[in-house]
Amino acid sequence: MPEPQAASPRTPDATRRSERSRRAIYDAALALVTEVGYARTTVEGIASRAGVGKQTIYRWWPSKSAVLLDAYLDLAGQAAAEAQDGQDGAEAAGLPDTGDLAADLRAVLRATVDELNDPRFEAPTRALTAEGVVDGELGARFVERLLEPQLQLYVDRLTAAREAGQVRDGVDPRVAVELLVGPLTHRWLLRTRPLTHAYADELVEYALHGIAPRQAVEGA
Amino acid sequence: MPEPQAASPRTPDATRRSERSRRAIYDAALALVTEVGYARTTVEGIASRAGVGKQTIYRWWPSKSAVLLDAYLDLAGQAAAEAQDGQDGAEAAGLPDTGDLAADLRAVLRATVDELNDPRFEAPTRALTAEGVVDGELGARFVERLLEPQLQLYVDRLTAAREAGQVRDGVDPRVAVELLVGPLTHRWLLRTRPLTHAYADELVEYALHGIAPRQAVEGA
Repeated sequence: MPEPQAASPRTPDATRRSERSRRAIYDAALALVTEVGYARTTVEGIASRAGVGKQTIYRWWPSKSAVLLDAYLDLAGQAAAEAQDGQDGAEAAGLPDTGDLAADLRAVLRATVDELNDPRFEAPTRALTAEGVVDGELGARFVERLLEPQLQLYVDRLTAAREAGQVRDGVDPRVAVELLVGPLTHRWLLRTRPLTHAYADELVEYALHGIAPRQAVEGA
Repeated sequence: MPEPQAASPRTPDATRRSERSRRAIYDAALALVTEVGYARTTVEGIASRAGVGKQTIYRWWPSKSAVLLDAYLDLAGQAAAEAQDGQDGAEAAGLPDTGDLAADLRAVLRATVDELNDPRFEAPTRALTAEGVVDGELGARFVERLLEPQLQLYVDRLTAAREAGQVRDGVDPRVAVELLVGPLTHRWLLRTRPLTHAYADELVEYALHGIAPRQAVEGA
């Protein structure tokens, strides 16, 4: 059993009740944003659906966007935990590193494709991303708390690959990661084409080896 | 002077009045979506701001999203026309083709960076893109009428480059274009990092030559 927040001065019963309320609030927030969109989701609506008082929400979060962001981070954390069940425990914190960069990137991008295609994640991810596109402050928090930590895992893996001679000297891993994540996100957000494992594999191939002829370096 | 719609049976005066109304409606639609967002923009609000009756709008467009999409396409058309002023007329319809693929792609991506950073385009582009992310039907029309025709220009240029031996045989130009446009859009929409000419140049370099060592083909 996971230990409840150790620093809390509450009794075990109060802690359990808090945890139940928090879970109900997260579930209600994600369900609402999925059903009616960000603009029409309200703290009142979340409270009512979760069966708690509005003041319970305001005691823990300053605003609708703060609840939604925490609810979404909680969901993303669940997804990460599920993904780790299929991995060795030792690699849980980062991207896989089998020594084969292409294979590792294919595995990660395929898992991302599966997550983006999962209805549980798709609607809330779309709702929050769309709001971040027009609301710079929410977008910045979304990027800082969720996106950049994810991108950093790629940066770490690509940095290790560069040290192992599998990424060219002089390549900036923070730019390189966008070559993988950018097209995937673009295709998913704008729904231009189906998001498939085959596409994930193609992206890895193109990003690693480029689209120019490989002997271009000799002709340059 | 551009000729008004030649097929119209109207008198010249009526055509001029229609054209003035259409322009006022487009301007009002873009101003409103920029100021209050997509959800709170209404046909009534557009009509009132444009100084026309609601029925004038409904005579020409079936819905708010249809007006906004046309207004946005008109704006994008103006941007394209402005960009062409700096180009040879003969190349106006497609991407530049000087024979140097890297230079041509850098020029196009730099121009895209400038457009995305231009406040006239930024707010309405964000508003419509965000709405398309959550509203699949609007998103599909946005992609069909605006995005895919733009991507096709890249596909044509990359196909010509493949025929000229500057793109590897077997590379799918429709996937390759996403390696350029995807990261740019990702960075802009999510505001992860500044969108600069230097970034555009880096993307072209990485997309053409990949991030793996160039001699990787010999070791494979």
